[in-house]
Amino acid sequence: MSKTPALPLQADDFPGWYNDIVYRAELVDLSPVRGSFVLRPYGYALWENIQRHLDAMFKATGHENLYFPLLIPMSYFEREAQHVEGFAPELAVVTHAGGKELEEPYAIRPTSETLFGELYSKWVKSYRDLPLLYNQWCNVMRWELRTRPFLRTTEFLWQEGHTAHATPEEALAETRQMVEVYAAFARDFGALPVFMGEKTERERFAGAQMTLTIEAMMRDGKALQSGTSHFMGENFARAFDITFNDVNNQQAYANTTSWGLSTRFIGALIMTHGDDKGLVMPPRLAPHQVVLVPIYRAGDDEAKAAVLDAVRRLAAELRQRDVAVKLDDREGLTPGRKFNEWEQKGVPFRVELGQRDLEAGVATVVDRLSGEKAAVPLAEVAPGMPARLAAFHDALYRRAEEFRDAHTFHAETFDDLVEKVEHGFVYATYCGDPESEKEIQELTKATVRCIPFEGPSAEGTVCVHTGRPSGYPRKVLFAKAY
Amino acid sequence: MSKTPALPLQADDFPGWYNDIVYRAELVDLSPVRGSFVLRPYGYALWENIQRHLDAMFKATGHENLYFPLLIPMSYFEREAQHVEGFAPELAVVTHAGGKELEEPYAIRPTSETLFGELYSKWVKSYRDLPLLYNQWCNVMRWELRTRPFLRTTEFLWQEGHTAHATPEEALAETRQMVEVYAAFARDFGALPVFMGEKTERERFAGAQMTLTIEAMMRDGKALQSGTSHFMGENFARAFDITFNDVNNQQAYANTTSWGLSTRFIGALIMTHGDDKGLVMPPRLAPHQVVLVPIYRAGDDEAKAAVLDAVRRLAAELRQRDVAVKLDDREGLTPGRKFNEWEQKGVPFRVELGQRDLEAGVATVVDRLSGEKAAVPLAEVAPGMPARLAAFHDALYRRAEEFRDAHTFHAETFDDLVEKVEHGFVYATYCGDPESEKEIQELTKATVRCIPFEGPSAEGTVCVHTGRPSGYPRKVLFAKAY
Repeated sequence: MSKTPALPLQADDFPGWYNDIVYRAELVDLSPVRGSFVLRPYGYALWENIQRHLDAMFKATGHENLYFPLLIPMSYFEREAQHVEGFAPELAVVTHAGGKELEEPYAIRPTSETLFGELYSKWVKSYRDLPLLYNQWCNVMRWELRTRPFLRTTEFLWQEGHTAHATPEEALAETRQMVEVYAAFARDFGALPVFMGEKTERERFAGAQMTLTIEAMMRDGKALQSGTSHFMGENFARAFDITFNDVNNQQAYANTTSWGLSTRFIGALIMTHGDDKGLVMPPRLAPHQVVLVPIYRAGDDEAKAAVLDAVRRLAAELRQRDVAVKLDDREGLTPGRKFNEWEQKGVPFRVELGQRDLEAGVATVVDRLSGEKAAVPLAEVAPGMPARLAAFHDALYRRAEEFRDAHTFHAETFDDLVEKVEHGFVYATYCGDPESEKEIQELTKATVRCIPFEGPSAEGTVCVHTGRPSGYPRKVLFAKAY
Repeated sequence: MSKTPALPLQADDFPGWYNDIVYRAELVDLSPVRGSFVLRPYGYALWENIQRHLDAMFKATGHENLYFPLLIPMSYFEREAQHVEGFAPELAVVTHAGGKELEEPYAIRPTSETLFGELYSKWVKSYRDLPLLYNQWCNVMRWELRTRPFLRTTEFLWQEGHTAHATPEEALAETRQMVEVYAAFARDFGALPVFMGEKTERERFAGAQMTLTIEAMMRDGKALQSGTSHFMGENFARAFDITFNDVNNQQAYANTTSWGLSTRFIGALIMTHGDDKGLVMPPRLAPHQVVLVPIYRAGDDEAKAAVLDAVRRLAAELRQRDVAVKLDDREGLTPGRKFNEWEQKGVPFRVELGQRDLEAGVATVVDRLSGEKAAVPLAEVAPGMPARLAAFHDALYRRAEEFRDAHTFHAETFDDLVEKVEHGFVYATYCGDPESEKEIQELTKATVRCIPFEGPSAEGTVCVHTGRPSGYPRKVLFAKAY
């Protein structure tokens, strides 16, 4: 058996569990760069799968990819007052290059609204040039004080969509469309149930008039903001002079949006689906959907050859059905050691095949989520796998949804909120005053995660904190958050 | 007609032609960041296609992707003497972050051998951990003085493979394998014939013991280095302490390699295939392989509806056959204007369809390379397109190869070299003395592009410059280079 100390139990030490599993499952490693992590192949493969599927959704909604420079002149940030206030403290700054001090320093992009603003001003002349529907996949940098793999890192990978429109209505429709794309992606690929809604003024993106969000619940009851979509109105258009001649040949400002989803989403997958044995990968994003482990006695070369031949054929059959399969034919490791490793790495299905199985014409299929083992006729393993994976996805989603529903509460009083927010999300009526929101956070460490698109009405109720009338038609969702 | 001045002719002003076409074809735009360009959707789509196909070749040869941090501690560069000498003058340096001056400044990666060295030292303990076969797709920065889109830019996109092996033989085999992958990719996807060979000591990567290269010939006869693969021996293993216990339980240094191909490759595509009308896209990398242009008289709504219906059906049929098709149904632009635009953007085939064509059951298929127009029965356009695209690729490769062969010369004397190298590549015998190479460059502006893997023997010949014996079994290739 392995001498590695056991993984902490989630119930005992959730942060410890998280901090252990990201390294043990070889998702990341430490780097000598403060707050930046190496994404190892198993972690990066998750990101590649996120990119592939999300990118297809962007393209299906009419967006094209492009690439903007990494560096942004420092003076650009100052053009939008709220934007500079939000981002200036976190910038990493290039002051020297090519052996000389630069006349104007550059910031490494923390987000690229300003540079897009500059070019959009050049590209947009007439209403015929609109909308611009662009996205880029890139790295960004925000110099955070406390960092944790995936959740908060100085450098991270993301996509940032930037669009420009002729009217606020169109830009608002885009903002809403993209948060819905994120929610659909979370549900259909990540098996993540999310709450969709609007941020309060206090939690908005720096420079936005409206921020929409998807909020997922982790297994410790805390929220993780997993994707956001911002309506800027004319803020950036005014700061960067994005004007156009409208249909009546009148000059008008464009309305812009931006929307982003980052490697943080991997943190949401880990903390929504993982259990005391390690990760549980959602099948549609899993680097390996199935791992094949051949079993033979050391020294029995004939059995080994037969078993290896059979698992190789099975691997080929699975690949033909577009199943991402890993054949673990490493020498010098016991099957038990391999079982543990792939269980910890959360591969949805393990298929074990030994000499006796082969004679009986069956394989053992083990489900990572339920732990169930099934003896499946060898000829049926590959044909049945797509349906098993689909069922696994559905079961994973259902489990997350049940957990979420069981940890989503309603509070009528402030004391009620204080107590319940220790255990999950809480619907409560809120007046909408930012000062009051700040006080609530100081008292409870919880914030308004969103004003949900759907949820209980606030009609006839008053703010749990101030007793004033509700600021919104619906109750808001409070939670502690990552 | 457009009022834009005509594109310069390649024969009159090749650099002017290049500098015009990259903007006109909307591949790039200027940015406010010195030496960095915006890759616009049409340019970035080329890079996406390069990534997709090359990545599949990397994975087929056993490599996995991962992601390393953007920033590298400055002190890391100093650990390998030649490496720091080569890269220190080009570094962009982050001195401040999060509002404070950093204790140790970071460089934005110009290449990542040092950071990989640091982590490989941690990951490699035993011969069982080897080989490590990793690659990353990322941005890098080299603060160049004179920049040109794609060819030399302060920031550029590339992939960098980094591998570690137990023996020099294995590392050398990897180095050779990857330059062959690049040559096959250039040929099979870019329709680029390349010379493959080894760099002289003077042209080697900073820190390498051997650099292999693919060299393509541009239509002005100059060379463009389009991909390189480096054997480091133990240089980086010694600098970063990448040691392991070998099969005999003896401690040994690993042998490492690195190999890269960048957005520079797009420059090679433009300058190998482009003509006086603009770009010519190699079909397997083309963002659009076919553009459909519907033709109808303004005001004739019935004809318009019929034609649009027919081109939409044709577009769907082409997509079903995996043809990347662009339907140009923009209003307010004449067909002639559209023809010019797509010709300039180098789309391999244009399909024109008007009311009269529709009645006759034919479409006009126009070949961007030959300019030939063919009336093709409508029902045969989609089924025949994959074969047309394959033939286009072959013809494009053949044309480039014929051009290259017609501009590859042999020189017996130095005067001969001086004269011929004005017109293309020149095979000549060279003694191998770096001092002599420097002098030749000062006199001719040409450099040794490579000691080719295949080519005329140098047996019984002497150096065209020094009269000394040849330094290599074969004649080397001289050329002026980008």
